[in-house]
Amino acid sequence: MKKILIINGPNLNMLGAREPEIYGSQTIADIEKLCRETAEKLGFSIDFRQSNAEAEMIGWIQESAKFNALIINAAAYTHTSVAIYDALLAVKIPVVEVHLSNIFRREEFRHHSYVSRAAKGVICGFGAGSYALALQGIKELLNA
Amino acid sequence: MKKILIINGPNLNMLGAREPEIYGSQTIADIEKLCRETAEKLGFSIDFRQSNAEAEMIGWIQESAKFNALIINAAAYTHTSVAIYDALLAVKIPVVEVHLSNIFRREEFRHHSYVSRAAKGVICGFGAGSYALALQGIKELLNA
Amino acid sequence: MKKILIINGPNLNMLGAREPEIYGSQTIADIEKLCRETAEKLGFSIDFRQSNAEAEMIGWIQESAKFNALIINAAAYTHTSVAIYDALLAVKIPVVEVHLSNIFRREEFRHHSYVSRAAKGVICGFGAGSYALALQGIKELLNA
Amino acid sequence: MKKILIINGPNLNMLGAREPEIYGSQTIADIEKLCRETAEKLGFSIDFRQSNAEAEMIGWIQESAKFNALIINAAAYTHTSVAIYDALLAVKIPVVEVHLSNIFRREEFRHHSYVSRAAKGVICGFGAGSYALALQGIKELLNA
Amino acid sequence: MKKILIINGPNLNMLGAREPEIYGSQTIADIEKLCRETAEKLGFSIDFRQSNAEAEMIGWIQESAKFNALIINAAAYTHTSVAIYDALLAVKIPVVEVHLSNIFRREEFRHHSYVSRAAKGVICGFGAGSYALALQGIKELLNA
Amino acid sequence: MKKILIINGPNLNMLGAREPEIYGSQTIADIEKLCRETAEKLGFSIDFRQSNAEAEMIGWIQESAKFNALIINAAAYTHTSVAIYDALLAVKIPVVEVHLSNIFRREEFRHHSYVSRAAKGVICGFGAGSYALALQGIKELLNA
Amino acid sequence: MKKILIINGPNLNMLGAREPEIYGSQTIADIEKLCRETAEKLGFSIDFRQSNAEAEMIGWIQESAKFNALIINAAAYTHTSVAIYDALLAVKIPVVEVHLSNIFRREEFRHHSYVSRAAKGVICGFGAGSYALALQGIKELLNA
Amino acid sequence: MKKILIINGPNLNMLGAREPEIYGSQTIADIEKLCRETAEKLGFSIDFRQSNAEAEMIGWIQESAKFNALIINAAAYTHTSVAIYDALLAVKIPVVEVHLSNIFRREEFRHHSYVSRAAKGVICGFGAGSYALALQGIKELLNA
Amino acid sequence: MKKILIINGPNLNMLGAREPEIYGSQTIADIEKLCRETAEKLGFSIDFRQSNAEAEMIGWIQESAKFNALIINAAAYTHTSVAIYDALLAVKIPVVEVHLSNIFRREEFRHHSYVSRAAKGVICGFGAGSYALALQGIKELLNA
Amino acid sequence: MKKILIINGPNLNMLGAREPEIYGSQTIADIEKLCRETAEKLGFSIDFRQSNAEAEMIGWIQESAKFNALIINAAAYTHTSVAIYDALLAVKIPVVEVHLSNIFRREEFRHHSYVSRAAKGVICGFGAGSYALALQGIKELLNA
Amino acid sequence: MKKILIINGPNLNMLGAREPEIYGSQTIADIEKLCRETAEKLGFSIDFRQSNAEAEMIGWIQESAKFNALIINAAAYTHTSVAIYDALLAVKIPVVEVHLSNIFRREEFRHHSYVSRAAKGVICGFGAGSYALALQGIKELLNA
Amino acid sequence: MKKILIINGPNLNMLGAREPEIYGSQTIADIEKLCRETAEKLGFSIDFRQSNAEAEMIGWIQESAKFNALIINAAAYTHTSVAIYDALLAVKIPVVEVHLSNIFRREEFRHHSYVSRAAKGVICGFGAGSYALALQGIKELLNA
Repeated sequence: MKKILIINGPNLNMLGAREPEIYGSQTIADIEKLCRETAEKLGFSIDFRQSNAEAEMIGWIQESAKFNALIINAAAYTHTSVAIYDALLAVKIPVVEVHLSNIFRREEFRHHSYVSRAAKGVICGFGAGSYALALQGIKELLNA
Repeated sequence: MKKILIINGPNLNMLGAREPEIYGSQTIADIEKLCRETAEKLGFSIDFRQSNAEAEMIGWIQESAKFNALIINAAAYTHTSVAIYDALLAVKIPVVEVHLSNIFRREEFRHHSYVSRAAKGVICGFGAGSYALALQGIKELLNA
Repeated sequence: MKKILIINGPNLNMLGAREPEIYGSQTIADIEKLCRETAEKLGFSIDFRQSNAEAEMIGWIQESAKFNALIINAAAYTHTSVAIYDALLAVKIPVVEVHLSNIFRREEFRHHSYVSRAAKGVICGFGAGSYALALQGIKELLNA
Repeated sequence: MKKILIINGPNLNMLGAREPEIYGSQTIADIEKLCRETAEKLGFSIDFRQSNAEAEMIGWIQESAKFNALIINAAAYTHTSVAIYDALLAVKIPVVEVHLSNIFRREEFRHHSYVSRAAKGVICGFGAGSYALALQGIKELLNA
Repeated sequence: MKKILIINGPNLNMLGAREPEIYGSQTIADIEKLCRETAEKLGFSIDFRQSNAEAEMIGWIQESAKFNALIINAAAYTHTSVAIYDALLAVKIPVVEVHLSNIFRREEFRHHSYVSRAAKGVICGFGAGSYALALQGIKELLNA
Repeated sequence: MKKILIINGPNLNMLGAREPEIYGSQTIADIEKLCRETAEKLGFSIDFRQSNAEAEMIGWIQESAKFNALIINAAAYTHTSVAIYDALLAVKIPVVEVHLSNIFRREEFRHHSYVSRAAKGVICGFGAGSYALALQGIKELLNA
Repeated sequence: MKKILIINGPNLNMLGAREPEIYGSQTIADIEKLCRETAEKLGFSIDFRQSNAEAEMIGWIQESAKFNALIINAAAYTHTSVAIYDALLAVKIPVVEVHLSNIFRREEFRHHSYVSRAAKGVICGFGAGSYALALQGIKELLNA
Repeated sequence: MKKILIINGPNLNMLGAREPEIYGSQTIADIEKLCRETAEKLGFSIDFRQSNAEAEMIGWIQESAKFNALIINAAAYTHTSVAIYDALLAVKIPVVEVHLSNIFRREEFRHHSYVSRAAKGVICGFGAGSYALALQGIKELLNA
Repeated sequence: MKKILIINGPNLNMLGAREPEIYGSQTIADIEKLCRETAEKLGFSIDFRQSNAEAEMIGWIQESAKFNALIINAAAYTHTSVAIYDALLAVKIPVVEVHLSNIFRREEFRHHSYVSRAAKGVICGFGAGSYALALQGIKELLNA
Repeated sequence: MKKILIINGPNLNMLGAREPEIYGSQTIADIEKLCRETAEKLGFSIDFRQSNAEAEMIGWIQESAKFNALIINAAAYTHTSVAIYDALLAVKIPVVEVHLSNIFRREEFRHHSYVSRAAKGVICGFGAGSYALALQGIKELLNA
Repeated sequence: MKKILIINGPNLNMLGAREPEIYGSQTIADIEKLCRETAEKLGFSIDFRQSNAEAEMIGWIQESAKFNALIINAAAYTHTSVAIYDALLAVKIPVVEVHLSNIFRREEFRHHSYVSRAAKGVICGFGAGSYALALQGIKELLNA
Repeated sequence: MKKILIINGPNLNMLGAREPEIYGSQTIADIEKLCRETAEKLGFSIDFRQSNAEAEMIGWIQESAKFNALIINAAAYTHTSVAIYDALLAVKIPVVEVHLSNIFRREEFRHHSYVSRAAKGVICGFGAGSYALALQGIKELLNA
């Protein structure tokens, strides 16, 4: 069974309470549940994590050899973290970047992503659905 | 049955022959076939079109009232066409932007997209798979 | 009787339906009607055209020798088309640029106009009234 | 009878003598005369003023509650005065910006206007005719 | 008794009427009253002035030798006036910059302040309260 | 009794030893003492914290529901942390940004603050006094 | 016999009439004649085309497999068309870019060329002679 | 006898007291005295003025027809005033720009001068001596 | 015996496995061993540390009073961390910045270093040898 | 017989040995030979020179009155030398700029050429053939 | 007797022949003669030199210890030569920068001067008269 | 015995006299002596040269085939010379860039180095010690 690591970045633990007009009313637990259900259908097991700490996220990315693919929503660190970018450059499994909102319709500084430079594919704007699509995309990438 | 309009922009008629190291070896016909198969599974009918002409693409976008959703790979016009952007702004159905390649790993001028500003969601980097994911994403958007 | 060519650019065929909070509820036919009535009062005949195609607009501009003046609302091409600019540079009759909305209160990329560099005068922000004012302005320019 | 305030900015008192190849040979008195004649035809009374002082212009703008509309040629302050911009933001009557010359064909620093951000409409390039068109434009704005 | 000069810049005479959603409903007289009351408690006398004229404000700043501290809300001139900046550079008493609104949440051009470069401290965003805090801040600066 | 959370960012634990010509000779303990005394006078209780870790600061900001107001000196993260900005955007109590020094008289990169975009008010340049003024400012904000 | 495709972009159909001080007095027919005569001497046959339409030019570039070399004067599209650039990237025969005028002595926006990034060689500033030199250059490129 | 108008801008009335490490210890009266003495030797009469008000300076520049040459130290307005620039553009007598300090060794924003674009010659960095040199330079310009 | 603190930043724990074409095949343990051997020859003791966490690195820098010199390879934080820069500004012992690769031959965003602004010397491009050279450089700095 | 001066800039003496994948394997002697043969066919005599010294190149350009035309490959000085640009501005004979490589497909800083601003025509990307084409181009320019 | 070194940069040996509409019709010999006559009146001896070579100019600047003052017209190197700037930084005698033309009315790249950053005073726009004024300015600087 | 070429650029012949607060009090002869002593210990012979002339430096770089490694302190040409960069690109032996001062703590224009793009390693900020470290670094590079 293929194992997928799903990493969530800062403030995603506040989903539901945090700016629901942008991020929707689903909590991080709701997203984890959706990911588990989708993964099950696709024959994947998932390891779903969230952290506000850049270093912890780097540590998790460095564990990627134990997984078959990586989905990452680096949240605010998307736009500022060269350290996460460097960690991703060393990753040999497929990486998919996701965002709940369409970051290109928001503030200018959210239009640039260090993660995109290191990812295979990018999916954004589908709310929690971005994660489900990412799992399906990984299915295809691993089959190809 | 929901009807999905899929619009492809300039040079996508050359897929397979054109820079296969970037765009893969599938032809536009292969992508259309994949879209038809995926749509069928999802209960959609599709109208799949390709044009090198900005004005023709604008005209097709203006027909959007006849459809339930729009998938657009505007190719080179993604980065330069305010006219396509304006046409999309008038569209009331969900719009999903797709790209075969991960445009954020390519030349600087491909990092900016007028289409993203008007789209609901963006998917790129999965090759022909980007289209299949877009159809699945639309499934969710229409259900939501 | 003086003949005035009036050229309208992409998406202006969608007026009324398209973002009425910006462009108002008048259709392109309403604007044409207003232009005909105003022209009649001023003793002009008009040739009123609309196209989504940059090349067709260039072709019309190249016909300018048959007219006494040119009014152009290049819409989205205003901001991107060097080709329309080049066509206008070869025009020997007075050119007036019009816009329905005040483009300087909108997105940054709408603040630059290639058309302005080649036009005699610029009028924007009066809705359909911009066209009527342009015809009156041309009256003065031709009398001067 | 509707009252229109017309404000002219720095150096416009030198018209006729000042760079006639750009601004034409008409004096400020000629422009005032044209404005009076046009206003009379349109059923307006006008209050026509000129000042080289930013503060005096701000004071005049602050008087706008006594008028039905405001026409302003802020001349050089167009490009530099946040204070005039702020004064205009508090104005509740229609504001029309005018320029004698087409500012978009001149030095780069004249392409940006703080006034445009606060005005309803903009008219430039028709020489003294810009004022006449502005009065006509106001006629329409007040009727609408 | 310590004497504090309080200088208010352009358009602040319009407070209450001017964009109340940004500046609140208090008038300049209300702010003066608040300043007088606060000053009295702190053992200060104040000289409270407002002008729309850059030159008048410069003149007042040049009088600073007669005072123990200076509070300045340069309003729009904050962002554009090198002349006020130069006047402040010659001031030897403590200078505190205040703004009613939080200028960093407004238009980009309001984020830069020439006054800040010459002031000891900066307080913004507390409405009329910014002035009261400035007086208290001066209390501390003069005691230190 | 109103509870105020006061968050201090990286290197503020070194105050007194660190660049005293910029930050003064008071230690973080001195500032805490000043805050406690001021808070007592104003009828507030305070929770005073310092961390060098962005993630810990984010966690504290996420606790804001337990408090009536938040004072934050994000130190170096002021200029770089989108993650702290995002955390602040979800905060519903009043936020006041403080700095010991006047950041606008220092290096260019210190002139931009992500915190200012999310704060109600900003106070800087009064040394430890900035905190006391912030507490007084909060008094007014909570009363208003 | 080697076959050379020569593509001319927008407004080149107006040569002779259009800004002769920049483009000279030769018509597009004169240039075609010069090209035919030069080609004949060099043992080439030519297919000489002009279009104002970006899409038609893209279509012609896509036909390049039928030719031995391509000469292109993309005129205004030189500076704006990513779509033409993409089409040229797929071309496997030698491409030479030509311009009548020296584009580097003209407006700033004409100094950047998307075509140059995809061309083997660039020739500009020799008027119609640029085309003759391009044919000679191709002779060498095909012999090498 | 040739008449020379010498205009001094904002804050120059404070010379001697104001930042003597930059501007020296001479007062504006000292400079006027030096100018009178130098002018006398050169056979000129001078009209020496100072104002903090942009509008007053514009008015004086507009009087230039009564003089044979103009020396201007626009001080802070040098860098910001398009209105003074416009006034100078209408001047037909020789204009010489002077500065006490070498503005190119000071803050970046002092390196740009609107006055330089309209002046015949520029002299800076010689303290009060800049004025004496300007008078001598005018001697030559009027003789040439 | 002089004590040298050596701090390594994020992802350097992955050396050997991580992009060996850039960073070489030596592990962090190999580098530590080289540093120990070199230090021994030079009569230094070293404290060699690595962390992915910005805050931990800041804490270590704050311990600098216990050491005679500091060598730092801040890795990705080199380019983004104002907080590490601030920590270094408070350091009174010599600081040497090192990098394994020549950062000036890599991506544009790696050309700027906050660390360089606070370091005495910079050494990069010698692989693990950069550390040995840094130790030798410190020898000289401490002797001088 | 027409005399053509051909000037080659820095490092071109290293051709053949220097980066042959960019500049080809021909030496500067090979290029001189090609130029002599081509010149002979066209009825020209040539003076072929190379220097690494900007000043020597300037001196040669200043000799241009003795020649009928000038071909210049300024190599690296193309992008940096205002002095060569100034020398070329004084030249009254036709100047053709050549480059072996297509400079527009190389590093960004090679896209700008001071030489182009002063040249009649530009030819690049044909290797040594660029020189032969330049001679032919000069033939036409001298005949025209 | 005070000795003044006067250094002239590239292409100034061509004065009179070179672009007389900008530089006037005087030759470098004429300027030398004017300098000698002026110097004699002022009691100076001069050493007047010209070179096209940056290195030779640097060498001359390095000789400055033998002189009492330095006048330099670095011509094109004004805008590009950090090496001349560095040489001037080591000079302990007064340095005056001169230009024949007003460089601020010419191309954008001539507005920046490395020489100005190292000079005491700057004089430009008086033709050969700039040199005479510089000698007079030096008279004052040496007397002060 | 390995032979090392050491090239020093403009103004380094003035060391000791030139800005000792930046460059220290050692002369170029002192540095040469240090290099000879260090080289002897490392078993190298050195060829130590200095020139103010860009072309002479280029010539020396072109001699690199006679040496085993190259150390270069290009001084001011570091920041401006594409010609030296091009010369270095053709060099096949290891190149080490050195600077006496830490160029990243000085003026902005000294932060960019063309030499760094072509060098293996970079060492700066150790005064004359930078050269000694460079020789040691070369020892390692040649052994590796």
